[in-house]
Amino acid sequence: MIKIENSRELYESYREHMRRLADVRAALALMQWDQETYLPAKGAGFRARQVATLSEMAHELATDGKLGSLLESLEQAPGLSDTEKKNVTLNREDFEKQKKYPPAFVRKMSETVSRSFNAWNLAKKENRFSIFEKDLAELVDLKKEETELLGYRDHPYDALMDEFEKGCTVQLTDRIFGNMLPRLQVILEKIRQAKEPEDSFLFKSFDKKKQWDFGMQVIAELGFDFEAGRQDLSSHPFSTSFNKYDVRITTRIDENDFSSMLFSCIHETGHALYEQGLPESEYGLPSGEFASLGIHESQSRLWENHVGRSRDFWKFHYPLAAAKFPDAFEGIPEETFYRAINKVNPSLIRTESDELTYHFHVVIRYEIEKMLIKGELKSCDIPACWNERYKKWLGVDVPDDQRGCLQDVHWSHGSFGYFPTYSLGSFYAAQFFAAANKSDQQLQEKMGKGDTTDLLQWLRQRVHAPGRIYNSEELCKYATGETLNVQYFLDYLLDKYGKIYEF
Amino acid sequence: MIKIENSRELYESYREHMRRLADVRAALALMQWDQETYLPAKGAGFRARQVATLSEMAHELATDGKLGSLLESLEQAPGLSDTEKKNVTLNREDFEKQKKYPPAFVRKMSETVSRSFNAWNLAKKENRFSIFEKDLAELVDLKKEETELLGYRDHPYDALMDEFEKGCTVQLTDRIFGNMLPRLQVILEKIRQAKEPEDSFLFKSFDKKKQWDFGMQVIAELGFDFEAGRQDLSSHPFSTSFNKYDVRITTRIDENDFSSMLFSCIHETGHALYEQGLPESEYGLPSGEFASLGIHESQSRLWENHVGRSRDFWKFHYPLAAAKFPDAFEGIPEETFYRAINKVNPSLIRTESDELTYHFHVVIRYEIEKMLIKGELKSCDIPACWNERYKKWLGVDVPDDQRGCLQDVHWSHGSFGYFPTYSLGSFYAAQFFAAANKSDQQLQEKMGKGDTTDLLQWLRQRVHAPGRIYNSEELCKYATGETLNVQYFLDYLLDKYGKIYEF
Repeated sequence: MIKIENSRELYESYREHMRRLADVRAALALMQWDQETYLPAKGAGFRARQVATLSEMAHELATDGKLGSLLESLEQAPGLSDTEKKNVTLNREDFEKQKKYPPAFVRKMSETVSRSFNAWNLAKKENRFSIFEKDLAELVDLKKEETELLGYRDHPYDALMDEFEKGCTVQLTDRIFGNMLPRLQVILEKIRQAKEPEDSFLFKSFDKKKQWDFGMQVIAELGFDFEAGRQDLSSHPFSTSFNKYDVRITTRIDENDFSSMLFSCIHETGHALYEQGLPESEYGLPSGEFASLGIHESQSRLWENHVGRSRDFWKFHYPLAAAKFPDAFEGIPEETFYRAINKVNPSLIRTESDELTYHFHVVIRYEIEKMLIKGELKSCDIPACWNERYKKWLGVDVPDDQRGCLQDVHWSHGSFGYFPTYSLGSFYAAQFFAAANKSDQQLQEKMGKGDTTDLLQWLRQRVHAPGRIYNSEELCKYATGETLNVQYFLDYLLDKYGKIYEF
Repeated sequence: MIKIENSRELYESYREHMRRLADVRAALALMQWDQETYLPAKGAGFRARQVATLSEMAHELATDGKLGSLLESLEQAPGLSDTEKKNVTLNREDFEKQKKYPPAFVRKMSETVSRSFNAWNLAKKENRFSIFEKDLAELVDLKKEETELLGYRDHPYDALMDEFEKGCTVQLTDRIFGNMLPRLQVILEKIRQAKEPEDSFLFKSFDKKKQWDFGMQVIAELGFDFEAGRQDLSSHPFSTSFNKYDVRITTRIDENDFSSMLFSCIHETGHALYEQGLPESEYGLPSGEFASLGIHESQSRLWENHVGRSRDFWKFHYPLAAAKFPDAFEGIPEETFYRAINKVNPSLIRTESDELTYHFHVVIRYEIEKMLIKGELKSCDIPACWNERYKKWLGVDVPDDQRGCLQDVHWSHGSFGYFPTYSLGSFYAAQFFAAANKSDQQLQEKMGKGDTTDLLQWLRQRVHAPGRIYNSEELCKYATGETLNVQYFLDYLLDKYGKIYEF
């Protein structure tokens, strides 16, 4: 029988162990951030082994017998708060899961990922899939091995999705997409028959330095704390967090595309605001971690689309943009600009696609991944499969691999099972945004004055504060009163595009 | 009795252990580099604990019983090459030394250093020593504790100097400075009586971007490999290396001072060329590490002073500088420029001082450190002691702590015993440069044409290639045929200043 005073001591030992693990993971995250921002070209080889060594050390800490005993004792310990109990339960699950990975597997995965990332980078630069293919095939084999290590009930891909979105399965995802895609196709068909918005002014010349400055201004306005984070350049925009006081985002700038950088800035800011909103005292514990990747993505999507691509947001920001880029925007009315940034356009690049066709991009990747992991598709056949599906779903011809299957960094990171969370994120975002507006009907009016403080406040309280104490579905219910209901997303699309395309 | 085939296996296990240790140290070095370049302000607290955790893990690896057994076995193992034997001997010494540090001490030191660095940064910014004093006092206490842990024969400060320059003692350093300083004073007196070179044009306005570009151009010309390194901005210029393919330097830019950034760039490049010249296959082993801090500094000083401040260097570079900064340099003859950048001027800031008075800056720090470590001076009395000595040795009044005892980062890093290596570095540099010129009498002529390839080649072979296999004195003998002889430095100064000041 454990005494209450011993409970506290045990909990503190466990907490310090988890904080140490978070420290090592933060070092790893810094090495990865650096790899994508500032690492000199020749440094990649040694960096790969450095990351592998730290990954192994993190794994040792995560599977340390001492931690196992602490967790076991704490499960019996009296006097813990509900949050503390939940932390123990969740970390016990993580512990059991981590123990399924042999250390040699962890090291091999880490080294293969580092090498693959470099191969992908080169392949993309040289526009040749074959440069990446061998490493990718090796990664897929490792991921298959991983599904066997982790175990699964129905489909091996379930084991991989579960890492990013607990409880998410092929069965569930197939059902959601099976329900959603035909309805998106109906909307897309209506849009195809409507008049296309004029948007050529978005592709004039926009000075890179001015784009950077405008992006930084918007990020700051949305509440990103630059004393607790920074933005840098990288080839693929991403966000990473070492703790709530050091959250980093990256972007890329295309001189001939106004939207490309700006919406990626807002998107990554959404991720960052979530991380900056996690409770400091819970560093290293589930109660201080994000809930799931789907929920993470809901935050980036909410800010990017429901805020950044909204009519109200541009009431305030369009005059600023027009003043900054008079050559491009002179004589362009606000309404024309708003329609242009929301133009639906089946296209090649996922990260630059509109809110509707985006989900076709996701489904294509999801289907390919399922086949790869099940062994129904070989890595070398990806480009053909990719191109065939882009033609089928989006009606576009993929001219080369750079704009085809080499466009995303994810596979080179070994992140299979990740893409579906992007769609889930959009669906959660719509539901969260609807709930926030229901609770404060002035939110959109305030947005029209450049003030998103109360929206952030609502998200901080309803979505950020609980950390990982609730899983996605519990959190959704806590925040909105009901579990995921994709109707919010469909209603949002119908309303938005109905007005823009007048159907 | 160990068989030869087992020797190889043992050596490979030992080598892999040392490479893992190097990996963790590289992660630490990256976190420290980041701390001084890109870390957001609020991130400092968590970074401190992350660095502390990694320091502890590095210490665990460095004192791992498994490593101890491997080293012990390898000392008896047949069939190792001389270099391999020497690696084992040196790492055995390191191992015994590291074991003297209790893990709790390592963590405490690391945390105190991180906190002190932030306190120093703030103190310097706010120009108030008192902000730094408490942390500094704590650090000094820890360093005193360290001298007791390590042990010493005569003076506790010996134990600290030994970490940076093996075998260096107070007795030896006192003798070198005691011999050198009066002779420097004689030269200084002659210079005081001579005509002062005109140098006001060096302090006109120099566009920061152009300074950066000029610095980058010079760095590249000297042979810095930008695919295996980078330059960034920081408040205190430094160099760091994660391996020979990732060597980073930093600089700062003063718009009203042409020399400040440029010579710091060349200085740090000297450090970087050494690291980029270490043998790749020896990563993690003594044969792949720099010999000592004195030797490291000899490389930075050699490039900064014997190259960067030489008459020949500017034959090629002055026309380039004059074209880049016509407003400042129009009508200024090359010879006038050369004299200006070599003006001897007793002043406040060590890093911007000339080659002669530099050593008085070092001695002042050295004397203060000795007293602090011996308990003969309290941290709170540093400013008064500092200012009094600057008046005595250099004849200057210290107007505030920013330009006084807060100017250097070293103490906030816990680096006591480091400064003397700066002077030793200058003395080694003069000797190396003399030897290089003796072996190739066209070196200076080539420098006049902007070509320093052969000089770098000589340094690569004679100084860089052996790593830490030779200690400083052995390396000096290997490279120049004799052990340290300060006469080379004195002859160099007399020749240079004799011509400039015409005595």
